[in-house]
Amino acid sequence: VSSGVTAHVRRITLLTDFGTADGYVGAMKGVIAAILPDAIIDDISHDIAPGDVTAAAWCLASYWSLYPPGTVHVCVVDPGVGTERRALAATTSERTFVAPDNGLLSVMLGAPDRRVVSVTEPRYMRPELSMTFHGRDVFAPVAAHIAAGLSIDRLGPGIDDAVVLRDGAAEADGVGGTRGIVVHVDRFGNLITDVHGAAAVAAHAVHVFVGEAGPFRVVGTYAQADAEEVVALIGSTGALEVAVRDGSAARRLGAGRGTAVRVTRDDSGRGTRTPERPT
Amino acid sequence: VSSGVTAHVRRITLLTDFGTADGYVGAMKGVIAAILPDAIIDDISHDIAPGDVTAAAWCLASYWSLYPPGTVHVCVVDPGVGTERRALAATTSERTFVAPDNGLLSVMLGAPDRRVVSVTEPRYMRPELSMTFHGRDVFAPVAAHIAAGLSIDRLGPGIDDAVVLRDGAAEADGVGGTRGIVVHVDRFGNLITDVHGAAAVAAHAVHVFVGEAGPFRVVGTYAQADAEEVVALIGSTGALEVAVRDGSAARRLGAGRGTAVRVTRDDSGRGTRTPERPT
Amino acid sequence: VSSGVTAHVRRITLLTDFGTADGYVGAMKGVIAAILPDAIIDDISHDIAPGDVTAAAWCLASYWSLYPPGTVHVCVVDPGVGTERRALAATTSERTFVAPDNGLLSVMLGAPDRRVVSVTEPRYMRPELSMTFHGRDVFAPVAAHIAAGLSIDRLGPGIDDAVVLRDGAAEADGVGGTRGIVVHVDRFGNLITDVHGAAAVAAHAVHVFVGEAGPFRVVGTYAQADAEEVVALIGSTGALEVAVRDGSAARRLGAGRGTAVRVTRDDSGRGTRTPERPT
Repeated sequence: VSSGVTAHVRRITLLTDFGTADGYVGAMKGVIAAILPDAIIDDISHDIAPGDVTAAAWCLASYWSLYPPGTVHVCVVDPGVGTERRALAATTSERTFVAPDNGLLSVMLGAPDRRVVSVTEPRYMRPELSMTFHGRDVFAPVAAHIAAGLSIDRLGPGIDDAVVLRDGAAEADGVGGTRGIVVHVDRFGNLITDVHGAAAVAAHAVHVFVGEAGPFRVVGTYAQADAEEVVALIGSTGALEVAVRDGSAARRLGAGRGTAVRVTRDDSGRGTRTPERPT
Repeated sequence: VSSGVTAHVRRITLLTDFGTADGYVGAMKGVIAAILPDAIIDDISHDIAPGDVTAAAWCLASYWSLYPPGTVHVCVVDPGVGTERRALAATTSERTFVAPDNGLLSVMLGAPDRRVVSVTEPRYMRPELSMTFHGRDVFAPVAAHIAAGLSIDRLGPGIDDAVVLRDGAAEADGVGGTRGIVVHVDRFGNLITDVHGAAAVAAHAVHVFVGEAGPFRVVGTYAQADAEEVVALIGSTGALEVAVRDGSAARRLGAGRGTAVRVTRDDSGRGTRTPERPT
Repeated sequence: VSSGVTAHVRRITLLTDFGTADGYVGAMKGVIAAILPDAIIDDISHDIAPGDVTAAAWCLASYWSLYPPGTVHVCVVDPGVGTERRALAATTSERTFVAPDNGLLSVMLGAPDRRVVSVTEPRYMRPELSMTFHGRDVFAPVAAHIAAGLSIDRLGPGIDDAVVLRDGAAEADGVGGTRGIVVHVDRFGNLITDVHGAAAVAAHAVHVFVGEAGPFRVVGTYAQADAEEVVALIGSTGALEVAVRDGSAARRLGAGRGTAVRVTRDDSGRGTRTPERPT
């Protein structure tokens, strides 16, 4: 291990649904610091809605690979604590993850080079495990030991059946368009969809519907949107997003996670906006 | 001082009720960084309810001892700023604390090896003290100097009359049970009580009441609870907690800090739930 | 570069309106860590109200100069992302700033020793720029390169027309007093005004009005205020603040950012509170 790599491996990120006011995150940081005094701990978020594994998995997907090789990513949204759910340690692309086995790590579980173990070795946990706080008693100490150089193979047996969240990938609709859903609503009220790649990229030729609302045009940048216009655009993750300049598309359209999204390649959907005419 | 210890003493934790959006915490961090450029600053929480010293003291109790010796814990919930309340620096078990003298440090003030000083030496404060922001002007610079190696004895005279919050320890009820209160409600709505140790541990033989509600059974883990059942269990701090699996016990029971809790060792308390019968 | 300075230049602060739950801040931190693995990243706030450049500029003003020379301050509140607004890098007093050109940096743009460049050099940005997330794609990598030692002169051409927020400085009212406004409401409900210096300092002789409410007296410290009394005092930034001991002046007076404030040096304003008398 070169000294350059050493600098890398001492950075640990934390993603939880613990809030901060109860001291749970402070306890995790203390455990890490006691094992690895010079660890740099980056808070990602502690504001995931309680128990919202799907939102945490989405959040994790947005940052994990931007960190340098050697980083240890700790993710604890753990509604199953105190049940038989396993604790996982996993690696891909030289980043390591520790998390409960509930789908949080879905983003990396499909990687060809992944290695996943079920953490069972008590020597890397706190001596007395609580029934309700494995963030402090299991995930924090395990992460610190990994950041200090421990191979995940020392933590327990390899497994290949970790829980993966259902893939919400959008599908072709058979008439040249795509059907998807809203997978995340961000702080700004932007509706982030599961429509990626070619289906989203042919921007000039498509219309976008959210639930019954639309069609909305696809713009290249916010600058092309009129004031308060609902538009679709390719967002920072490469997915199609629906947004309102300086406003909330979620509120404007009454949409949220799971709302249906349609991308049409012709104007077959325009009928929904045909102005009423006297007959 | 060995180099191993040096690595320890440069970690400073921050617990405040300042929020972050006003820049008050940023100002504290800047003051610390200016004195000790390589300090690692761990945020614990800035979301303590404004002025809630009791909640902050509870939070502090949950993490301070998990940090390694040499850590400096800064706690600023300071409704008395601008009055004659003293500023404290204190040590126990090789951790050091700085905080206003309002009960925040109660958790460590009973330790036999504690040393407490009233911080009066202006040379370790900012040159011009504001009347409203001692977090920036007193506590941050003092903490940085301590982390850099200064003994607290240099900060002012030793004292032995620091403010301690009233001890809410549960008491035996005289008929084999225990009476206590809810001392904290966490983000998940769990009701954390002041019932500890033997009173809480004899799980198989006890019933738990919260206010007028109950009796609730004590389970070993969440896995033993039925869906939406209110249960009691030993939480991560060793205290009896009342919880609802995947829900909020606080909301379900209408309980909060101060709500009475009873633990009975027989079924003498069951009468409160005897169905009404015609007479 | 001496090793002492090296310790300084690796600290980067982050101020955004991103919240944390969407992973946007995590992405920025990952980009920084990948370029500069041993960077210490201090969160200032991610809780600025979405798009509130004025609040962010106020927040920045409260901490930037307290950090040591060499610090890189990153500020991303960027409602104009995806338009032609420029990205700035700027230095003054040996601190460096990166931010969109929308007034965020107003506090330092008036400094005589400032240097400001429009960031145009793509080699210090991420290879593919998104249209919606320059925090990750422009500001984070540019900040990391600066912290690693890059001169801002390498980033693009110098400019001298950066956007500055209108100066809300209070003005003399012509009869010995001062007219100003509330410029910020903090977490505690304190009303922070733009009345500074001599106008605010002559405390013994002035009365303060907030909108139609008042006059309120100026006290030296909170200790001089009666319970629940509205008072004015010199706050931690040197500006006149209106506060309620253990309460919210904003709620009590129904005041907010922009509310008019008057400081009178005699009792000419008292008439507004003359009790109604029968005539």
